[in-house]
Amino acid sequence: MKTIGIDFGGTSVKLGVLRADAMGVPEVVDVAPAIPTAEYDGPEPMLVRIRESVELLRDRHAGVCAIGVGVPGFVDWERGLVYGLTNVPGWRLFPLRDRLAKMTRLPVCLDNDANAMAYAEWRFGAGAGCRSMVGVTLGTGVGGGLILDGSIFRGFNSLAGEIGQMSIDFRGKDGPYGNFGALERYVGHHRVTARAQARYAEAGRPRSQSDCTPDRVAAAAATGDPVAIKLWQDVARELATALAAIVWLLNPEKVVVGGGMSRAGDVLFEPLRRSLESQLDGPFLEGFELAAARFGPEAGVVGTALLAADAVGAGAA
Amino acid sequence: MKTIGIDFGGTSVKLGVLRADAMGVPEVVDVAPAIPTAEYDGPEPMLVRIRESVELLRDRHAGVCAIGVGVPGFVDWERGLVYGLTNVPGWRLFPLRDRLAKMTRLPVCLDNDANAMAYAEWRFGAGAGCRSMVGVTLGTGVGGGLILDGSIFRGFNSLAGEIGQMSIDFRGKDGPYGNFGALERYVGHHRVTARAQARYAEAGRPRSQSDCTPDRVAAAAATGDPVAIKLWQDVARELATALAAIVWLLNPEKVVVGGGMSRAGDVLFEPLRRSLESQLDGPFLEGFELAAARFGPEAGVVGTALLAADAVGAGAA
Repeated sequence: MKTIGIDFGGTSVKLGVLRADAMGVPEVVDVAPAIPTAEYDGPEPMLVRIRESVELLRDRHAGVCAIGVGVPGFVDWERGLVYGLTNVPGWRLFPLRDRLAKMTRLPVCLDNDANAMAYAEWRFGAGAGCRSMVGVTLGTGVGGGLILDGSIFRGFNSLAGEIGQMSIDFRGKDGPYGNFGALERYVGHHRVTARAQARYAEAGRPRSQSDCTPDRVAAAAATGDPVAIKLWQDVARELATALAAIVWLLNPEKVVVGGGMSRAGDVLFEPLRRSLESQLDGPFLEGFELAAARFGPEAGVVGTALLAADAVGAGAA
Repeated sequence: MKTIGIDFGGTSVKLGVLRADAMGVPEVVDVAPAIPTAEYDGPEPMLVRIRESVELLRDRHAGVCAIGVGVPGFVDWERGLVYGLTNVPGWRLFPLRDRLAKMTRLPVCLDNDANAMAYAEWRFGAGAGCRSMVGVTLGTGVGGGLILDGSIFRGFNSLAGEIGQMSIDFRGKDGPYGNFGALERYVGHHRVTARAQARYAEAGRPRSQSDCTPDRVAAAAATGDPVAIKLWQDVARELATALAAIVWLLNPEKVVVGGGMSRAGDVLFEPLRRSLESQLDGPFLEGFELAAARFGPEAGVVGTALLAADAVGAGAA
């Protein structure tokens, strides 16, 4: 079966064709050129552009039978609406699912991008075989997707999984929604950069913003730079506090961490694992694993295309 | 159908007979004298005593067909084991379900007491009709039970719902399990008493410990005492921070708050509702309700007896 996955990001919209081989293992067999999100002013011009890419991919791959779309924002899953997109203006209560379905004459699944990532990891990645798994995306913001007892748990208004808004400090910074101490106010990409800049300045070793991206700070930590190591330890502790809260609440089998910032690798995962385990009681750790995501930047395309494929397979799309 | 519910508490063990009327609405039709937990040294003498109470109730009510037991601690639900009980020594990895079933020759359901409370509220209380509901018990500790998509969500090792251990402050007090800032270190019964004593002393109005129980402090707040009002506001904000985190993560339809401390009523619930709603984005509040539990001290007996009745009804016990 072939399906198209569309990963709608704040920076670009990526499209790819996923094909399952004879064993059912999926492979991205083609991608369309990324569409720069900012160049399209609102849903209508963007939809026209997405349709062109879909048609391009369908010209090259006969037999595409469904489309999955993941968006960075709240989704009304039942009605196929986008409530609004983070960092992308103009998408208020937009019926993306039905509009795209009508344009392409294909069934369309619309979901939150973190749900798509979690689904990809659960079906064929680091969470394969779990009954319950929490997927975490560390990027500009912090997102999450919950697989509970073998399916995506969406909650009452299909908004579940907003890990980045969970508080780690009831006296903490105000978040975007009136919430105090929201996790992503501490460990989001831009916060890590700003914190790194401030700490290097304090240490008498000022660095430019572009030298303080999470990738750069991770590279510095890997070579033993104490400022960088300490920053990742602090980020790890803050993130671990939220993940521990999730584990106390949901007792999952796995927590799978992906997203751009997870590329930091051991300098993040080692203190993260240590801090998380130190905050949990023994029985919660039996059989538990904190794992790095298998899928990288392609997680969104893979996850959305898999959601579409499985919905068609189950007769739901 | 008649079932017996056993609510195993740190202070006493309560037993009652639950009968469903023609409409299926349950009623506690009889209770046995409470058993003081501390008078029994470990599982074996306690089991003998529980059996006596069960037999007493069965003598008075023919046709009891199952038993439910709720305990204040971690339970291995699949194997029917008690991992250990909070404040009750000697119960390490005890096979309570099978031992009690053998003694009474009745099917036994064993669960965490907060799960039983949540189940009672979901089946016939403040959460009736919800697909997803979070039950919170405010007492000596803070417990929780999750009803997700129409059934109790137990997690990988049947430990889910430990709301009291979730952190509200990553720099906060050390909890019993190495966790920082555990909610119950702020809002548990004893902490509220200690905080009230300290604040009355600071305000130049020292009060004895027995005048600082949550019930007394709630009564004082209801008559306009500013020290008491401020304390409940602070407790509400701390509790709301954890509940907001849960709502961001799970997007439930209802959060139902019970347990002894919830008797504080409006002096707790009004600031709690206000703080919770101020920490959530609009879509999460659509159709959402924070509700006081319907069942009081009988919640444990009702919930465990209902779990047993429903298991028998479904052919699972």
